[in-house]
Amino acid sequence: METVELHGNVYSGDCPTRQILDRIGDKWTALVIGLLEDGQTLRFSEIKRGIGGISQKMLTQTLRSLERDGLVTRTVYAEVPPRVEYTLTPLGNTLVAPLTAIREWAENHIEAVAEAQTQYDEAE
Amino acid sequence: METVELHGNVYSGDCPTRQILDRIGDKWTALVIGLLEDGQTLRFSEIKRGIGGISQKMLTQTLRSLERDGLVTRTVYAEVPPRVEYTLTPLGNTLVAPLTAIREWAENHIEAVAEAQTQYDEAE
Repeated sequence: METVELHGNVYSGDCPTRQILDRIGDKWTALVIGLLEDGQTLRFSEIKRGIGGISQKMLTQTLRSLERDGLVTRTVYAEVPPRVEYTLTPLGNTLVAPLTAIREWAENHIEAVAEAQTQYDEAE
Repeated sequence: METVELHGNVYSGDCPTRQILDRIGDKWTALVIGLLEDGQTLRFSEIKRGIGGISQKMLTQTLRSLERDGLVTRTVYAEVPPRVEYTLTPLGNTLVAPLTAIREWAENHIEAVAEAQTQYDEAE
């Protein structure tokens, strides 16, 4: 049997890795995965409370996309009302470090970026 | 004199770091910064050629945003026609490693993500 090895190139416009790059770089993805790091298991309402300004619809879409991509597991417990919990898969765990670096960059360099923006806007 | 220290929290909806997280996670940002790493200086047309599927308008917007945020320097040489070159600033250089990790994640995990998507779609 022949095995086809999939290895992508994000610089190619029609490579499927481009879509994945788009989704993993999404700010909501970075925020949800950050909340679920270290084996955290959280309910929808807990994730929603943890991310200021996210709408019900956007969080639903983000979680569904993360589940479809194999990054998050959704477990439904047969209770009344049903309890639904989210946790990272092993694949999702491999994204924790790169996304933490991105979130920390934003938090640590906000001052430099804000200064650059002021200078740029004054020169316009 | 009092100094106000700016340090953000991306989990707060009205924190300016949220917008920065959005922009640095953008796929076009990740691709442009990857092309300009290692001190590369490139013209607009060279960057456009390097990124499959990017439109003139999207690249113009991305480069302007990167310039405004202090990540890219735009230099115009007084030639006919004018030569315009882009290179990373020292601040932009600090984003190279985190964004390389994100691009490489997409390229290295495409197979696992594609498998998860197939399973998810079959179960629907």
